[in-house]
Amino acid sequence: MAELAARAKAAARVLSTADTETKNHALLLAAGQLEQDRDDLLDANRADVDAAIASGMSATLVDRLRLTDSRLAGMAGGLRKVAGLADPVGEIAEGWVVPSGLRISRVRVPLGVVAIVYESRPNVTSDAAGLCLKSGNAAFLRGSSSALASNLAIAAAMRDAYEKAGLPGDALVLVSDTSHAAAAEFMKLRGSIDCLIPRGGPGLIASILENATVPYVIDGDGNCHVYVDASADLDTARRIVVNAKTQRPSVCNAAESLVVHRSVAAQLLPPLAGDLADVELVGDEAAQAILGPDRIGKATESDYSTEYLELKMSVKVVDSLDEAIAHVNDTGSGHSEAIVTSDLNAADRFCAEVDAAAVLVNASTRFVDGEEFGFGAEIGISTQKLHARGPMGLRQLTTTKYVVRGEGQVRGEGIC
Amino acid sequence: MAELAARAKAAARVLSTADTETKNHALLLAAGQLEQDRDDLLDANRADVDAAIASGMSATLVDRLRLTDSRLAGMAGGLRKVAGLADPVGEIAEGWVVPSGLRISRVRVPLGVVAIVYESRPNVTSDAAGLCLKSGNAAFLRGSSSALASNLAIAAAMRDAYEKAGLPGDALVLVSDTSHAAAAEFMKLRGSIDCLIPRGGPGLIASILENATVPYVIDGDGNCHVYVDASADLDTARRIVVNAKTQRPSVCNAAESLVVHRSVAAQLLPPLAGDLADVELVGDEAAQAILGPDRIGKATESDYSTEYLELKMSVKVVDSLDEAIAHVNDTGSGHSEAIVTSDLNAADRFCAEVDAAAVLVNASTRFVDGEEFGFGAEIGISTQKLHARGPMGLRQLTTTKYVVRGEGQVRGEGIC
Repeated sequence: MAELAARAKAAARVLSTADTETKNHALLLAAGQLEQDRDDLLDANRADVDAAIASGMSATLVDRLRLTDSRLAGMAGGLRKVAGLADPVGEIAEGWVVPSGLRISRVRVPLGVVAIVYESRPNVTSDAAGLCLKSGNAAFLRGSSSALASNLAIAAAMRDAYEKAGLPGDALVLVSDTSHAAAAEFMKLRGSIDCLIPRGGPGLIASILENATVPYVIDGDGNCHVYVDASADLDTARRIVVNAKTQRPSVCNAAESLVVHRSVAAQLLPPLAGDLADVELVGDEAAQAILGPDRIGKATESDYSTEYLELKMSVKVVDSLDEAIAHVNDTGSGHSEAIVTSDLNAADRFCAEVDAAAVLVNASTRFVDGEEFGFGAEIGISTQKLHARGPMGLRQLTTTKYVVRGEGQVRGEGIC
Repeated sequence: MAELAARAKAAARVLSTADTETKNHALLLAAGQLEQDRDDLLDANRADVDAAIASGMSATLVDRLRLTDSRLAGMAGGLRKVAGLADPVGEIAEGWVVPSGLRISRVRVPLGVVAIVYESRPNVTSDAAGLCLKSGNAAFLRGSSSALASNLAIAAAMRDAYEKAGLPGDALVLVSDTSHAAAAEFMKLRGSIDCLIPRGGPGLIASILENATVPYVIDGDGNCHVYVDASADLDTARRIVVNAKTQRPSVCNAAESLVVHRSVAAQLLPPLAGDLADVELVGDEAAQAILGPDRIGKATESDYSTEYLELKMSVKVVDSLDEAIAHVNDTGSGHSEAIVTSDLNAADRFCAEVDAAAVLVNASTRFVDGEEFGFGAEIGISTQKLHARGPMGLRQLTTTKYVVRGEGQVRGEGIC
């Protein structure tokens, strides 16, 4: 493992000064290579899929694992798209001159070695590696054992392409030991891994929080709320709640909980419950009194803290904006929280007082992702506060360095 | 411990929306209170100092522990200075409009609860607490057992002042259990501590890297180099090396190692060795051949990786810029690295290829701190790559939040 890390680190030094044109060329070659190696990739994937079915893997997980022509085309297209995005490296984030005459600039530079631990989808191999390459980082990847043959085939194709473009193949290093012992070793490679980004379920996240000694960015849960304020336009509220809950229920920026001001609950909930005919509702006594116990079950305290990721929603009726904000802060996961309102003061207070990566006024929580924010692509959505918070694009895969230019200045006496 | 953390967290919610005027008022009252409570503070400190002397603490550490009238004045002055700095909270870091019509802004907000673990200097209590308050964070502090009486007295004075200003006293929570068990518990308060900043020696840092499960920012070692290039103006080089090594040898941005291009070594080293008469030198064979073994001892490999923090310096002669950059990257700690040169290409390559928080051209490494960078004050100098890298001022004690404003937008079908 240490030898793999050393190879990634050596590649990272080369990548840190690679020019944009070379990196783009490598990405385009990699896209072409994935298409050219179609038969090999599908064969490798078939072996993974057959083994997964034989081992009794669920149909949903087998579907995630499976590569098809259209998924391969999506992977190649993704690499071409990343080639077209702006290169964040070298961007001057800020610059100024200090009284000593020194000219200071803060310049965006690659992180170095970016490690990604991910679960069964093999497309993450090319997606993550492409974003790392464009941002000048070596990708140090550890996928799941069930996708190993697929991941190895994808990595081999991309490494070939990188070398043809004159970049080190070790710009993509895939760990082929998928044992738990190797995973434990991986997340303790301090000094070799500059940033670890897990892409997976709660078990993976918990293991990283408990065991990792390398720096990491967590792509966490999304227990997202939509709060319908007393002053909300109720047609707008219905459209936003329906979109936030049902447009794609399985993703982290889908809404899990509806909070309604008591003064509009009786008017909003009946038609909204009709809009949400396919959605199981659980709520408090006030919501049950309006919709009846046949339409809405009783919510437990744990319901309000649960990210369902399916067509189920909790409902809470509140007496005030204060109560709504407190409820969102107490039960939310700090991902994306929306208010529907026509009251400027309520909007401003919600934005200021709700503690989350993103707060939205009169818009669906589903907009909180890298594509919709205009980043072109995303490696995840951070729910932590340090380094990156919210959707992470290429820029969030960089750090900065101070460049200080002088003409022989030395420091005088004075405060330390 | 959990109860203390909950109190800090509750205070952080209040502070997150406190206005600048109230925070400044609290800081000014706290400064006045420290002066007013002079006798109590000095009495408490005398108890700490007497106990430390009785326990056999070294004179240097006792000096760090001791409060005097002038140190108290410095603490009060520090708080007044922080009151005069710009408030980073609410600053819009960037903002744009996306095709869906949503208006997105990234707004600077407090981190929440900032924890600081620190060693014997009691002034850190007021310095750190003041920076946290101004940036809207609750300060959750754990000082050393040797300074406990002093720290409790300072905290009590500041908490009083905060309450008089209408802010929660729990904006400063000091942990009075200074046992090792309490320290271990402290650094695992995930969910309560938003950012931990250690201020202390290698033992403390190692313990945090090994045991902390809360997010942290490391204020790390500074094994800083000055590289004198073939094209350097040698008078400038001498002034910069002398300043970087000797102006304040005990701090992290002091230089520890001199790297010299072979073509100027014979001309530079003899007069420079004279300038550095008080500095013990160790070097490679080339440097020894020039200066003689009486003036310069033989450097071991470990010398080149050592942060001496005293009047000792390692010297290495290199054949090229490439060798200089590789040596700096291999042995440096990623803090501050300087080149002295008149060659534009050498300057640009050194800046691009050296991996450090700060790279300097023709200036002393001693300039890399929050004061000299114009931040007004600093809580430390980060040598990590995530969140903050380099000097940390008030802005580095914040995170950002996306505020998204719409007019009822919902997300259409399409990619994820």
